[in-house]
Amino acid sequence: MAKFMDVHDGFVGVTAQELDAAHCEDLRFEATEGVHFEKAWLDPEAGKVFCLSTGPSKEAVLRVHEKAGHPTAEIYELTVEV
Amino acid sequence: MAKFMDVHDGFVGVTAQELDAAHCEDLRFEATEGVHFEKAWLDPEAGKVFCLSTGPSKEAVLRVHEKAGHPTAEIYELTVEV
Repeated sequence: MAKFMDVHDGFVGVTAQELDAAHCEDLRFEATEGVHFEKAWLDPEAGKVFCLSTGPSKEAVLRVHEKAGHPTAEIYELTVEV
Repeated sequence: MAKFMDVHDGFVGVTAQELDAAHCEDLRFEATEGVHFEKAWLDPEAGKVFCLSTGPSKEAVLRVHEKAGHPTAEIYELTVEV
């Protein structure tokens, strides 16, 4: 299993409730791809969302986000952490 | 205390040992600004580093990274998390 950070733009003004709803959509589809979304953080002023996940590949993470309705091309494989 | 994610570019090919050394420099200076760096993740292929921290302001986080020798303009305040 690898670890990933993905970054979403355009979430300006999104509320906690809306982020929670988007995250729930990820959780609904993640098992079909062997992915687990551990955490999501939002800066509603900049419109940035960061999602931390584990899974088999970047493509699997992308497919979950696509099924959940919020795809992003910015997915990074985190091979080192401190 | 607020929570922040900052993003660094240009860390292509950086090793675990080098990331650890950079993180140690942050830890050396963070107390002077009331900041604490909780975690850093690296994608050495894309050259991206993500740092999760707590502190009083974006400017304080920036000052620690400046003192540590790796400033970045990309600092996001994470007011929502799930």
